[in-house]
Amino acid sequence: MNIKENIKTLVIKNPLKLDCGKTINNFPLAYETYGSLNKNKDNAILVFHALTGDQFVTGINPVTKKDGWWSYAVGPNKSIDTNKYFVICANVIGGCMGSFGPSHKNPDTNKIYGTDFPVITINDMVNAQVNLLDHFEIKKLFSVVGGSMGGMQVLQFISNYPDKAGTVVPIACTSSHSAQNIAFNELGRQAIASDHNWFDGKYLSNNTLPDKGLSVARMAAHITYLSKKGLQEKFGRKLQERDALKFGFDADFQIESYLRYQGSVFVDRFDANSYLYITRAMDYFDLVKQFDGNLSNAFKKTKAKFFVISFTSDWLYPTQENKDIVIALNAIGADVGFVEIKSDKGHDSFLLDVPDFLNTLKNFLDKSYSER
Amino acid sequence: MNIKENIKTLVIKNPLKLDCGKTINNFPLAYETYGSLNKNKDNAILVFHALTGDQFVTGINPVTKKDGWWSYAVGPNKSIDTNKYFVICANVIGGCMGSFGPSHKNPDTNKIYGTDFPVITINDMVNAQVNLLDHFEIKKLFSVVGGSMGGMQVLQFISNYPDKAGTVVPIACTSSHSAQNIAFNELGRQAIASDHNWFDGKYLSNNTLPDKGLSVARMAAHITYLSKKGLQEKFGRKLQERDALKFGFDADFQIESYLRYQGSVFVDRFDANSYLYITRAMDYFDLVKQFDGNLSNAFKKTKAKFFVISFTSDWLYPTQENKDIVIALNAIGADVGFVEIKSDKGHDSFLLDVPDFLNTLKNFLDKSYSER
Repeated sequence: MNIKENIKTLVIKNPLKLDCGKTINNFPLAYETYGSLNKNKDNAILVFHALTGDQFVTGINPVTKKDGWWSYAVGPNKSIDTNKYFVICANVIGGCMGSFGPSHKNPDTNKIYGTDFPVITINDMVNAQVNLLDHFEIKKLFSVVGGSMGGMQVLQFISNYPDKAGTVVPIACTSSHSAQNIAFNELGRQAIASDHNWFDGKYLSNNTLPDKGLSVARMAAHITYLSKKGLQEKFGRKLQERDALKFGFDADFQIESYLRYQGSVFVDRFDANSYLYITRAMDYFDLVKQFDGNLSNAFKKTKAKFFVISFTSDWLYPTQENKDIVIALNAIGADVGFVEIKSDKGHDSFLLDVPDFLNTLKNFLDKSYSER
Repeated sequence: MNIKENIKTLVIKNPLKLDCGKTINNFPLAYETYGSLNKNKDNAILVFHALTGDQFVTGINPVTKKDGWWSYAVGPNKSIDTNKYFVICANVIGGCMGSFGPSHKNPDTNKIYGTDFPVITINDMVNAQVNLLDHFEIKKLFSVVGGSMGGMQVLQFISNYPDKAGTVVPIACTSSHSAQNIAFNELGRQAIASDHNWFDGKYLSNNTLPDKGLSVARMAAHITYLSKKGLQEKFGRKLQERDALKFGFDADFQIESYLRYQGSVFVDRFDANSYLYITRAMDYFDLVKQFDGNLSNAFKKTKAKFFVISFTSDWLYPTQENKDIVIALNAIGADVGFVEIKSDKGHDSFLLDVPDFLNTLKNFLDKSYSER
C-alpha cells in the first residue's frame, strides 16, 4: 500500500502517557474531515471508527479505492449530514492507516516496532484524538458518534472529557468487553500468531506477511458480524456456481466462497500487528471497572445528551449490553434516549443500509442541532 | 498415539457405495461395547458420537487415558444404564480412532490417503455402522441415541433403516446444517489448510503435523459449544494468575488460557485430516433435501418412538432447528416427544452434568424399555 500521499497527518507534540506506563510524543495521528467547520465552530462531529475501519469515513477511500466504511451514514443530506456538520475522523493509534502504529519505525532503534510497539487502550486512543480539537480550535464538539469499538471510544471520550461534546451516540457497543468477545478476538490473534510468516511480529523485517493467519482471523470475525438468520437468508445452503456437491474441499457452498473472499481482500488493506493491538485494546476495555463497578460514575460529570442504539440481531454486542449503558445513565438522571433497531443484519447493521437506523440517527442529530 | 492394541475392529467386507460415487470394502470399523447383550438381543443401544468423539463412550478412554466423552450419561445406573442396556458405539468412518480414515494407507498405492481419502457423508457413516447389527446378530436395536453430529446420524439411521430401531433420540442437532454452522466449519478447515505444515493434507508423509492450524480450528469450535452467558459466568473478565493487566500478548484473561489449552490438548488426540472430513460430512448433511424438501418423508416408513431434546442456550443447534424435526414428525402423526432443557452450558450441555437432561433421557429410555 502506498498510503502516504493521500493521508493528512497531525503530529502530536504533547506527551501522551499511555495506560501501559510508557509515554509517547511527536507521534503522527492521521485524520480526514468532511464538510466545513462553521464560524462558531459548533458544528463538529468526531466520528470514531471500529476495529478495521480508518479515517476515510465516506466517499472513495483514496488508499483502497473502495467506498468509505460509513458511506451509508455520512455525506450530504445523509444521517450525518456533511452539508451541515464538520465531520472529523482519525485513524486510531495502533492502526495502519497513517497513525502511530506497530508498522512504524522505532526512532530509537530505526527498526520497525512490530510487537515492540506499546500495547494501547481505548483510553489511549481517545486521549490521542482529543488533540484534534485544539488543532481545529474547537472548544466543544457538537457530537461524538461511533459504532462497535467506535462506540467504546465514544463512551471513553465523554467520560474523560465531559465538557467537550454536546451529544453522545454510542452504537452497537458495550461498556465492558464480554468473555465471548475476548474469546473471538483471542481466536483471531492465535490465527495470526500461528502463521509461519508471523515471526513473532517481525514479519516486515523478514519481508513477508502472515496473510494466511490474518485471513483466518478476518473470517472468524466476519461470522460474528452477521446474524444466524441473516446468513441463512442470504446464503442458506446455496451452492457456488455448481448444481451438485463436488465431494471435495473446494468451496462448495456460497458462504464458503464469501468467507474466503472476505479473508483474502482484508489482507490487502490491513496490518496483522495492528489487528493484534486493536483487538487487545477492545479486550482491555472495561469502563465499569475504571469506575470501580459503578458505570454511572463514568458519566456523572457530563451534561451531554446521550442516544444509545442497538440492533435486534446483534449477538456480538447484544441489546442488553447497550441497555446497561442506558441504565447507568438513567440512574443519575442523565438525558438519554435509546432505540433498538429491528434488523436481521447482525452487528454489521450499523454499517449497512438499514433505513430505520439511518433515519433515527439523522433525526436525533438534526433535532439536537436545531435545539442546541 | 499407539491406538491399535486397545481397539476392537470389525472388518466390513460388504462393499459400501459412498455418496461420492466410490465403493469401499474390507475396511475397518473400530467400535466399543458396554454392558451385555441379553438373550433376546433386544436391549442394544447404538450411540453415535459427535465431531471429535470416538467409540470410547464411558470409563477411561484407553488411548487418551481420560474419561470417555459421555461418562455423565452412560454407565451403570446412569441415563443410558449399562446394567440394563448393551451399548455399542463405533468410530465414524473418516475418523481417527481406528475406523477407516484419511490417516490409513491406501492399499493401491501403499501411501497414506491424506486428502486422497474419499469425501464421506453422514449417510456413509451410518451405512457403515449398520454392519454392527449383523455382527452382533441384532435384528432391531432398542434405541439409537446421539447428540450434535451424533443426532444427525440418529436421524439418518432411522430414515435409512426404519425397522432397525424401536426408539430414536436425536439430541441438540439439526436436519439440515445451517449457513452459520457451515461458516464455522469452513473457518476451522481454513485454519488447518493455512498451517505451513499441512502440505495439502500430506503432512504424515512429510513427518509433520499441522498442529497450530488444528489448534486454532478447535478454539473456534470450542467457542461455539459454549453460551455467551455461560462464558460470562464462568470466565467473565477474570485474569489468569495475575492481579493486573500485563499490557502484552500473553494470556491475560482466563478465557484466553482456557481456549489455548483446549486447542493444545486437542492436537494430541485428533487428526487434522479427520477434522476436515468430518466437518465436511456435517456441512453436507441435509436430510430435508434428501427428501425433496419434505422432512416428514424421511420418517414415514418407521414406527419408532422419537424423543427430541434441545437446550435453551445452544446457539449452534438452537431449539428451533430441533423443533423442526418434531414438526415434521407431528405432521405424519408419528410418536414423538420433545423437551427443551434449561441450561446455560450451551451446545455442550448434552456432554456435561446437566441433571434435568440426564434424568429426562433416563426416564424416556427406561419407560420405553419397560413398555416395549
